[in-house]
Amino acid sequence: MTITAAPVTRRLSLAARPLRCRSCGAERQAAPVAICDACLGPLEPVYDPGRRLPDREAIGARVPSLWRYREWLPFDGEPVSSLDSGFTPLVEAPALAQRLGVGRVWVKNDTVCHPSLSFKDRVVAAALNAAAAFGIDTVGCASTGNLANAVAAHAARAGLKAWIFIPDELEAGKVIGTSVYGPKLVRVHGTYDDVNRLCAQVADRFGWGIVNVNLRAYYGEGSKTLAYEIAEQLGWRLPSAVIAPMAGGSLVSKLHKGFREFLDTGLVAGPVPRLYGAQAAGCAPIVQLVERGGDRIEPVVPRTICRSLAIGNPADGVFAARAIRDSGGWASAVSDAELVDGIRWLAQDTGVFGETAGGVTAAAALSLARAGRLRGDDEVV
Amino acid sequence: MTITAAPVTRRLSLAARPLRCRSCGAERQAAPVAICDACLGPLEPVYDPGRRLPDREAIGARVPSLWRYREWLPFDGEPVSSLDSGFTPLVEAPALAQRLGVGRVWVKNDTVCHPSLSFKDRVVAAALNAAAAFGIDTVGCASTGNLANAVAAHAARAGLKAWIFIPDELEAGKVIGTSVYGPKLVRVHGTYDDVNRLCAQVADRFGWGIVNVNLRAYYGEGSKTLAYEIAEQLGWRLPSAVIAPMAGGSLVSKLHKGFREFLDTGLVAGPVPRLYGAQAAGCAPIVQLVERGGDRIEPVVPRTICRSLAIGNPADGVFAARAIRDSGGWASAVSDAELVDGIRWLAQDTGVFGETAGGVTAAAALSLARAGRLRGDDEVV
Repeated sequence: MTITAAPVTRRLSLAARPLRCRSCGAERQAAPVAICDACLGPLEPVYDPGRRLPDREAIGARVPSLWRYREWLPFDGEPVSSLDSGFTPLVEAPALAQRLGVGRVWVKNDTVCHPSLSFKDRVVAAALNAAAAFGIDTVGCASTGNLANAVAAHAARAGLKAWIFIPDELEAGKVIGTSVYGPKLVRVHGTYDDVNRLCAQVADRFGWGIVNVNLRAYYGEGSKTLAYEIAEQLGWRLPSAVIAPMAGGSLVSKLHKGFREFLDTGLVAGPVPRLYGAQAAGCAPIVQLVERGGDRIEPVVPRTICRSLAIGNPADGVFAARAIRDSGGWASAVSDAELVDGIRWLAQDTGVFGETAGGVTAAAALSLARAGRLRGDDEVV
Repeated sequence: MTITAAPVTRRLSLAARPLRCRSCGAERQAAPVAICDACLGPLEPVYDPGRRLPDREAIGARVPSLWRYREWLPFDGEPVSSLDSGFTPLVEAPALAQRLGVGRVWVKNDTVCHPSLSFKDRVVAAALNAAAAFGIDTVGCASTGNLANAVAAHAARAGLKAWIFIPDELEAGKVIGTSVYGPKLVRVHGTYDDVNRLCAQVADRFGWGIVNVNLRAYYGEGSKTLAYEIAEQLGWRLPSAVIAPMAGGSLVSKLHKGFREFLDTGLVAGPVPRLYGAQAAGCAPIVQLVERGGDRIEPVVPRTICRSLAIGNPADGVFAARAIRDSGGWASAVSDAELVDGIRWLAQDTGVFGETAGGVTAAAALSLARAGRLRGDDEVV
């Protein structure tokens, strides 16, 4: 794993693939555009079904990063930056399995992702390589904290200019963690949802690559690598249930897509894992949609200490709820007190000290187990 | 990389090797003892020179953790806990090379080590497997912060009891980071050196495995894995210079040992890298010894914001200074203002946000380069 952070301007061999609307199916050329002209639905990259795919052995021989699954990421050719993100440990946690009363439990420890220590390193790695493919030299994001760190860190290393937009109430620790990388940092008086709307205007006006706005179609594909890693790290098989935190809702739907892609190519066999979504009770629009059914998110005003999941109007909420129901899973919201307990016993059972989102996920797992949603023979990630 | 954290009590197939005194050469049986009966010198494990060693290809095919070099670690058989520590990224930093005026620079990013995000995960992984080999069920440490986190996290995962001893002036962030794992936490009114003396008495009285006291002979060997990883990640070759932070001084002497071991076995060729040691000016007894020459550390009372290097009476200081001089290197102390600048430009040049010890190392590199100690064609880690 020799990592060379060559400035992206040196080689631009990436060529992004066409995009297709997830709502109406319209196709368009690859571009830094995330929303369908026709119906305003979200766009996602299209993969050539005839492309040459690696087998288990070929994947296993590659460098341990998310790029070992590059045929399922929206680039042709080699990535040029963020080469060492991904392939974080899958830690078995017998004490946690006992607590939940299920067969076996693993924790996917993205608190050690490279370089900025959160799951966001995966999506930023995908987005920044897309930016490179489009020749964009200024990137940015709307963020509740972790994404700000990740964009600033990856951009610093790649030699790109970075503009970071955050709500002005964000805690000092997170702001320092971002500003040390030297981006332009804009504190916006408002919630994450307000910041997000501003970023859409900025992307339009200046043509910058806002990773979770106009680069969102590429950014989101980075989430799928969690599914691939889980499958490979379990010895090329799938767990029976996966519990994931939800903010914008993209992670759950991308996990679903990732597991299905590996099933389709025959790399693994069996049923798609049941997917369970976790939110804080103070901001749980996707959980409410799963419980209520239907096809329309009712936005909420967030009120929780779990800032990183506090998206009141989640962009992919409808798709997340649909993936959860299709897989036979469910969703759970937990109180702030429960999530703090979750952080504590996750640390004590597994040695992994997660943030509030990790606490939400752990507490939701316990709540789902108590409600009889998890079975005694389940293998849970 | 499927990681299974089986409770250590289930299997105890480890058998530690004999120990030899680094000062007088006396040998004794493997035991949780770090100091020579005869001369009070430090003990270290002896390796059978006839043991079967893997080649580059065999090592390259193993799981990416520090255990891929297990033949150079003091255990027979398979490790039982902390299976996912080590094998952190080596990040090339062209912007940093330009700043220092040298050929190429890489940063060894142990801020993403598993599970507690510092270099200390390596040494604790070694020490806790030694504890398992001796059947010890209670471990502990004297710590300035990071070691406390690492011992508490690794012990929680392995199901061991942990007693952590820290100076009472340690910052709240570090204390919370440790206490979340649920160890017994003892705040001692005094400096790290006072805490360390107390731990020696505790180890004697209760027979616990204090990782940096009576398990120190095993603990220290974990540091060598940094040298092995650097050699492998550079494509099985050595850099010309390595700059390392110094607290107790063990890291520098173990890097020296690790590079020599790989040279001896023919895995790499060429000269041993020149070793450079970095300390904060407010606690620089090893730097002073390198500058002054001689064979005796003059202890100091630490006065620096860099707590993690603030060891006034470094246990391995003499060996560190000797390794530095033998390798043709040098040492440098930097002010607290310089180390803060070092943190900032390390983040902006490389995307790695280090702690104060990382800032000390970066600032010392600049100081050494300006003093003409680094050459224009140097390859520096």
